[in-house]
Parts: sequence; C-alpha cells; structure tokens
Amino acid sequence: MNEEITISLKDAESLSLKVLQHNGYSQVHAEAITRNVLAAQRDECHSHGLYRLIGCVNTARNGGVDTHAMPEVIDQAPGVVRVNAHQGCSLLSFEMGKKPLIEKANQTGIAALAINNSFHFSALWPEVEALSSEGLIGIAMTPSHAFVAPAGGTKPLLGTNPIAFSWPRPGGTPYTFDFATSVVARGEIELHKRAGKTIPSNWAMDDKGNATTDPAAALAGAMLTFGGYKGSALSTMIELLAGPLIGDVLGHETQAANEQKTGKPFHGELIIAISPAVFMGEQATHHLQHAEVLFDNILGQGARLPSQRRFEAREHSLRYGVTLPKALYDELKALTH
Amino acid sequence: MNEEITISLKDAESLSLKVLQHNGYSQVHAEAITRNVLAAQRDECHSHGLYRLIGCVNTARNGGVDTHAMPEVIDQAPGVVRVNAHQGCSLLSFEMGKKPLIEKANQTGIAALAINNSFHFSALWPEVEALSSEGLIGIAMTPSHAFVAPAGGTKPLLGTNPIAFSWPRPGGTPYTFDFATSVVARGEIELHKRAGKTIPSNWAMDDKGNATTDPAAALAGAMLTFGGYKGSALSTMIELLAGPLIGDVLGHETQAANEQKTGKPFHGELIIAISPAVFMGEQATHHLQHAEVLFDNILGQGARLPSQRRFEAREHSLRYGVTLPKALYDELKALTH
Repeated sequence: MNEEITISLKDAESLSLKVLQHNGYSQVHAEAITRNVLAAQRDECHSHGLYRLIGCVNTARNGGVDTHAMPEVIDQAPGVVRVNAHQGCSLLSFEMGKKPLIEKANQTGIAALAINNSFHFSALWPEVEALSSEGLIGIAMTPSHAFVAPAGGTKPLLGTNPIAFSWPRPGGTPYTFDFATSVVARGEIELHKRAGKTIPSNWAMDDKGNATTDPAAALAGAMLTFGGYKGSALSTMIELLAGPLIGDVLGHETQAANEQKTGKPFHGELIIAISPAVFMGEQATHHLQHAEVLFDNILGQGARLPSQRRFEAREHSLRYGVTLPKALYDELKALTH
Repeated sequence: MNEEITISLKDAESLSLKVLQHNGYSQVHAEAITRNVLAAQRDECHSHGLYRLIGCVNTARNGGVDTHAMPEVIDQAPGVVRVNAHQGCSLLSFEMGKKPLIEKANQTGIAALAINNSFHFSALWPEVEALSSEGLIGIAMTPSHAFVAPAGGTKPLLGTNPIAFSWPRPGGTPYTFDFATSVVARGEIELHKRAGKTIPSNWAMDDKGNATTDPAAALAGAMLTFGGYKGSALSTMIELLAGPLIGDVLGHETQAANEQKTGKPFHGELIIAISPAVFMGEQATHHLQHAEVLFDNILGQGARLPSQRRFEAREHSLRYGVTLPKALYDELKALTH
C-alpha cells in the first residue's frame, strides 16, 4: 500500500502553516519554515519537503528550538552581517539577514551572512537560489551533528556538512548544487535499514572502524566523506567556516533534540554572496552570457546539470500541485488539531 | 641510476634566479617565481618545485608568457581588487595584489583578489598560506586546460581546477589543503605512462568514453573528477568563479604553449581572504583557539591533517637544504649559460 494524494500548492501551504502554528511556532517562524518546505516539496525533494514538519514539531516538543525566538540582526562590518537566531529556526534568520547581505554584496562585491545559534533542518539550495534570483552568486554551508569520520580516522567527528552554490543564468533557471560532504545523506542509510537492505561498503564504518554493509552498524559507527581525503578536507573547511570563524560551535558539540530534552542542536551557518556586476561592471552581462558556453558544452556531451530534475519537477508542481504519501498527509493533518 | 644532489636553499634560490634571468624573465618576475618554486622544493612538493623552471623556460620560448609584463592593479570595489597580469606569470600579480587584498579583508571582513590574463603553473598553497600567515583565512582557485570530463560526460571540458584553503592556527603551522578536482593530477598519469605502468580504472576514460587502465589512452581521452558528480559540480563552480565571474576565459578556451606558438595558456585566478578578527572582534582569539579542538580530535583518532607531511619536510629542508635528482640539477645548470 503506497497510496498517494495530490494537493494544490495553496493547500500544502495552508496545511504547513496549520501544523506549525498548532504546535507552537509563531506566525513569522511558521511562514518562513513553510516557504522553505513548500519549495522543497514543489521541487520533489521529498526528504526536505512537508515530511520535515514532523521533525519541526518533535524538535519543538523536545526543547530543541525556541518557536518564538526573534532573530537579532547585527551590522558587523562593511562585508559582514550577523544574525543571532537565539535558538530559533535558521530560516527566519536567513530571511531577515538576506536584505542587508544583498545590499553589502552590491556595495563591496563580496559579503557574508553569519547565522548563529540556530536550529537548522533545511536544504540549502532555497537560500543560494534566493541570492541567484537577485543576480548574485550564492554559496552556503552549515555543519550538522557529528556523524562522519575524517579520512584516515574511525570515529564520528565531522557533520554531514553540506555546501550549496547557485549561479545566476540569464533568462533561465540557475546553476545550483547542494550536497552533503558525506558519501550519502544519513537518511539514505536509515531508509536502507528500514527496508532491510544492505548498503555499499564505501558508505560507512562500524563502531570498530571496519567497513560495513549493515546499515544498523553504520548508524552506530561512522559515515565516510565523499571523495576520500579531499571530501574530508572540504568537510573540515565547512566546519571551520560555519563554526569558529563565525563564533559558533563544532558539529560534535551539537546533538539532535531528544525526549530527555538533553539535546543541543543549535549551530551556525555561513552564506556568501558575490556580485558579478561589481566584479565586472558593465561587462558582467557579457561574461554571464559567456558562462553559458560551459553549460552548453556539459549538456552537449550528454551530461546533466545538477538540479535539472528539480527544475523539471518544479514546472510540474506549479501546474498540477504536489503529491505525497497519504500516510504522511494523514500524519500532518493529525498534527493540526 | 637515481643519483641525487643536496644543495642549500640559498644555492637553490640562486640557481632558480639564474635560470629565469638567463631565459628572459625580468628581475621582478624571476624573484616572484623563485619564491614560489623554492617554497615548493623546500616542502618537498617536487612536481611544483625547481622542476617547474623547465616549464617556465619552455613556455617563454614558445610565446606562452610575457616575461617582462608589468601587472596592473585595479581597485575595483571596497571588497574587490583586480590585477591584470597582461600575459605575465600569475605569481608577481599575486604578490602585487596581496597587500590591497589584505587591507580590504581587514576593512570589510571578506574580500577577493581576481587575477586576469595570466600564465599559471604553480601550487596554490603558497598563496593561501601568505594569507593565513597574516591571520586571515585564504581560499584560492584557478582553472587549467580542459583535461577533465564532467560527470556523466565523456569529453574533456573542465580543467583539473584546483582549490586551496588555509586557516591560521595560533602558534602553529596553518590548516592547509590544496588539491585538484580531478581524481589525480595529470602529471601522475604521465608518470605512469613513462614507467610503463597501468592506471586504476577510475582515473580516466579513453577517447571513446570507456574506462581505461592505459595511461596513453587516458591522456588522449578525458580524466575524471574526484568524488563523481559532487567533484564535477565543484570543478564547475571553480571554472565559473575563476572564469566568467572575473571576466576571464573557460578552461577549454586555453591550451598549453607549444612549439608552433599557437597555444594560449592565459587564464584567471580567484583568491578570497576572510578576517576572523572582523567577523568576531575581540572574541576571534578565543574562537580560533576553539578550532584547535577539531584538529586535536582529528589527530586523536589517528587521522592526519592535510599538509602535515609538507610541514615536516619544511623543517628538514630549512636545516639540511633540498635534495633533487642530479639529472634535474644538471638540466637546470645547463639553462643558466
């Protein structure tokens, strides 16, 4: 039984707002979270779509997020804006920091937004695409809880530490990628466990540091970084830039919220915005157009651009609404009353 | 016969300067190149050490570099300095752009140096370490000639597109990495060919797009990116940021210099500098110290930090000088008269 239900984006939005508000989120937080999960659902990124509302509700119940926290915006320097999320969800902080970030990037050419002390559960591409839709290049990174061993090690230390990038394309969808620096997302291993399947031996180690194909042993052990020591170095860079650089914690100092209310999920996020118009002046349009040669050549040899599938799904959802498992829909409905 | 010779750093410097000046490089270019290859030789990065002088000489002979070009520094914006290398070697441009870059980063918190129209042959870590030695975080990237296929493709399009990062560590050597986004450096495949050895099947494809273990077929085909589609996405990002963003060319629009003098090796480089002191004010020292917890935990589980071996080699070379193959030494000597 994999019954599905299709609802309009409008109904999905209304459902999300009701779930969040009924479970304690303030209006502004509910709206910011809804914009994010709705964008993911629209693009058929199911693991970051409406499904995440269940996590938002549980995290609130377990004291892992302040549902009414008001972000504090700090104008740190000509190229730096900081937002203290005060243990609220990161998404409202991003929305409030976005305007000064864009203003600074348009002034200086390159600027950074540092979000501190936030509960973070979302995909990063909506944030870098919020910048590319303004003609800027966006780069975003954030640590996560310590699930991943550094290359050459055997113990979880690094987060799955995703990085996202978006490049504005004249007259088209942006060039965007958003990926974890672990071989796969942790959810993939959880899904294999649930389905009783083995995992490839290059995904993780057991708690003795041996390669394993058993998802349960992998979850109790340590995940691996993608691309060996190079992925491990990138992951470390992300942990440093979205941690100590911005005065925030390291991944292993955080934990998911839990029923004992001992989890401290709060951490940082770094977003960099770059203005081609400032770098290149009047020639920016010409050079952005020139970048299309690269994309044409990638597509011309039969390769795909990252996010292509997502943009196709977006087209479809905007016309026909979004489809989700009936069981998930019912679960979300039950959270509204 | 693998006879070696050990010479002092002073003698290595003098040899490098003589080679470059005897082959047409101006004093300032010869000095900037020498500082770079000497640093690499000192750290036992042999492929970027004195060996590269042969390439510098050949490139000059083949019209692939203007040995007397005077870089032009342009104060583009509060966060952006540009340097037009005017077809000279990138290293003097970096040295001339470094001071305004540092000044801007110390003012705005984050700033960028764009080098255009340069001949680039060098490792990137000396440049990011020039920033971390000033208490800044450095990130550098540059394209190279089109040797690498995008993930899912079969034809060379992307450069080996290296990225480097350096983080200042209180009282110690920095945390630095510098790697190509191809699985391996192109030189590795050339060395296998020379030695008559096969290569692992995940390094490259032949010109029909099939995996190959034959280094000659690999060199005629396309190299692969590290980490599959994630490495390919990073490589594309590097090509965009160090290309069209800064008004420069894409990797496939460049070629190594050649005897027919038809090669156009000139391209761009992007260096980003970030100031922890601006991001964190007085708390910067505390948070840089806190980052040490991450390094301690990496080392504590038996993993290594990138560049560790290089720093150990540095210690050794500073005491005992540098060792190189006698044949290379003789070849360099022959280039001095």
